[in-house]
Amino acid sequence: MTQRKIGRGVAIVGAGMSHFGAFPDLASRDLFVRAFSAMRASVEKGLDPAVIQALYIGNYSSELFEGQGHIAPLMADWVGLTPIPAIRIEDACASSGVALHQGIIAITSGMYDIVLVGGIEKMTDLPTEQVTDALSTAGDVLYEIPAGFTFPGFYAAMASAYMVRYGATSESLMAVGIKNHDNGARNPKAQFGSTISDIMAAKTAKAQNKGYAVPSWENELDFLHDDRANPMIAWPLRLFDCSPISDGAAAVLLVADDLAPTFSDHPIHIIGSGQASDVALHDRPDPTILRAARRAGQQAYEMAGLTPADIQVAEVHDCFTIAELLATEDLGFFEPGRGYVAAEQGLTRRHGLKPINTSGGLKSKGHPVGASGVGQVVEIWHQLQGNAGERQVSGEPAIGLTHNVGGTGQTAVVHIFERR
Amino acid sequence: MTQRKIGRGVAIVGAGMSHFGAFPDLASRDLFVRAFSAMRASVEKGLDPAVIQALYIGNYSSELFEGQGHIAPLMADWVGLTPIPAIRIEDACASSGVALHQGIIAITSGMYDIVLVGGIEKMTDLPTEQVTDALSTAGDVLYEIPAGFTFPGFYAAMASAYMVRYGATSESLMAVGIKNHDNGARNPKAQFGSTISDIMAAKTAKAQNKGYAVPSWENELDFLHDDRANPMIAWPLRLFDCSPISDGAAAVLLVADDLAPTFSDHPIHIIGSGQASDVALHDRPDPTILRAARRAGQQAYEMAGLTPADIQVAEVHDCFTIAELLATEDLGFFEPGRGYVAAEQGLTRRHGLKPINTSGGLKSKGHPVGASGVGQVVEIWHQLQGNAGERQVSGEPAIGLTHNVGGTGQTAVVHIFERR
Repeated sequence: MTQRKIGRGVAIVGAGMSHFGAFPDLASRDLFVRAFSAMRASVEKGLDPAVIQALYIGNYSSELFEGQGHIAPLMADWVGLTPIPAIRIEDACASSGVALHQGIIAITSGMYDIVLVGGIEKMTDLPTEQVTDALSTAGDVLYEIPAGFTFPGFYAAMASAYMVRYGATSESLMAVGIKNHDNGARNPKAQFGSTISDIMAAKTAKAQNKGYAVPSWENELDFLHDDRANPMIAWPLRLFDCSPISDGAAAVLLVADDLAPTFSDHPIHIIGSGQASDVALHDRPDPTILRAARRAGQQAYEMAGLTPADIQVAEVHDCFTIAELLATEDLGFFEPGRGYVAAEQGLTRRHGLKPINTSGGLKSKGHPVGASGVGQVVEIWHQLQGNAGERQVSGEPAIGLTHNVGGTGQTAVVHIFERR
Repeated sequence: MTQRKIGRGVAIVGAGMSHFGAFPDLASRDLFVRAFSAMRASVEKGLDPAVIQALYIGNYSSELFEGQGHIAPLMADWVGLTPIPAIRIEDACASSGVALHQGIIAITSGMYDIVLVGGIEKMTDLPTEQVTDALSTAGDVLYEIPAGFTFPGFYAAMASAYMVRYGATSESLMAVGIKNHDNGARNPKAQFGSTISDIMAAKTAKAQNKGYAVPSWENELDFLHDDRANPMIAWPLRLFDCSPISDGAAAVLLVADDLAPTFSDHPIHIIGSGQASDVALHDRPDPTILRAARRAGQQAYEMAGLTPADIQVAEVHDCFTIAELLATEDLGFFEPGRGYVAAEQGLTRRHGLKPINTSGGLKSKGHPVGASGVGQVVEIWHQLQGNAGERQVSGEPAIGLTHNVGGTGQTAVVHIFERR
């Protein structure tokens, strides 16, 4: 059983995001207004919001993070869209990737022609421990969390299994973090505007200024191996293997293909969309693959009539560095067990053979969990339009992909985009 | 701008629910298994679950109520449906009504042919005050909740405005509760299996047995006016004006019309589906109408090519008794300000002109909030199939309606069903 080709084409004619980061003065509604405004400004021929017919908003848990439920009509209200249908979609950290899938279906159905898809999360109001607890509810709270798992623990389990099986090392993981910070430093909306080298230099300067013992890091790997600079979170994952706690919002405007010229002469077409589910991690036979991601990817490739080799730029779900390595294998970019070699060899860098997470990824751009899926699409939009600035990949890419995961892989959703 | 006719017909070929009530030994996954099993047993020609292609599950807040997020793939797992896409929809108490709308769109799109739509809520693990707090997050937590509002307060505001404007009284509200308990007493899945008379008799008998002063209630209204038997919650709403805190789940199986004969010779067709949003209550000009419900109803009528007069049986969102009165007006069954007269005159009783909430409604059947929308559909399924037992309305109804509201009316969704 496979999903079918999209009967009626769907295009993106606008995309935008708020800054990702920690914004104590902004509630989720404020962040969404910023994302909406950025999206609106990106619509080449202008957008009258009154033409929007439905809102799909991905959000993991505004209830736990902000004490605000029923967020969909609230977001609709704050950007002036009531009385249109407003639907919140939740699939943990894949919430807005899944919202995109639903927005596509809504247009394909013929019920709606013009649909706003957004994502929002406001996480930094709570102390870190409470955020960790809130995120852990995306595991199985009866069978996994009582065993002591948190999300760093889940992904640490995947990482150690992967290292044992294939010979990857801590430095394989570090290669991902170094690359993603290098990209994020070129993304003005990213939470971290610094390369690891920048951070290293800043810490060195600070020690000098304060008269502390000056660390003798020779290079980025040296810095990342330092337990004080990069403490262990859950072996083998250190601080710089983990995406941050973030606030942020993102939005894209979907329209039926035939309406795209009304809004833009440079739309991006969605040519593949796949979604799948899986059992919780403790029930899976192999922690080094995410079956849902493989399946969602296969569906998207089949729908698009493409293979992994056709993808020129991709945003994948690097909630932890190990997750990016697994993603590049699950998506078929590299053979199982070869993703880490590719990362170490620089194939996934901005000007490598297969550029991955040019935005900085969740690691450096930030991971406001419900917004991350649509945030990925915003980056692909820029890359395919050729306006990604300093982080633009070479070769005028025409085909891009996003890969968004919920929990430990109980949900995955993959989309493929084309500039024609 | 209106929603269009459904291009590809959608039929319900199976419907079932768990018991609604308080079940300390069952988690939401257990309740959903029961609903799924009841649904499966109702499929006339049998159901191999392997044919199901997607799951849409409505849930308000398993995060707050149970500490479990990312519930969609978990529900899929527990009924053996992974790896199909599993999507949680949240729109407060309209969550599963909205999930139904999305399930319909999914089939109409041609992306899926066979879709399971469910609803689930497990509320009774928490103390009542915490449940009230959790529900209040469906209001605006920045602009309404700090003013002291809880949901009984919101609906009390609507009720007092309605009473002042139209001359309705507490007894108008009581007429709704009496009717709904009379219906719920005939529903073996209902939380309350008792009429108000039954409850009155039981309390009298208990007083006699214990040697207490025996109350001298002459009739149900007399009982409902007694502050000890029916305490004031938020004037003018008393205990018996409020739906209970409930656990429960419900499920329906949707298929493309052309596939219906594979599953059943007696499908129920969905001929109208409308959804709308609105601003929070404090921003609305008139608390005696729910504009989103009016709009959703108009869309559904238009899609179905029907008028309010054509509806032979309806389940409406009576989270509080006042809500049922407003619903019967918003849906056009009665003129504004005449809903309470109709209720007092018995027009909405089981064998009245316009039977409303034959299931017992949220008031008596129970209100596990995320399950209520699909729970309503289960009742209409039974009524249109003519197998609603003791609560079957007369005249072999062929057209039914469901009306599901989120929050104070920031979301509303209306569906119309037909037996051909």
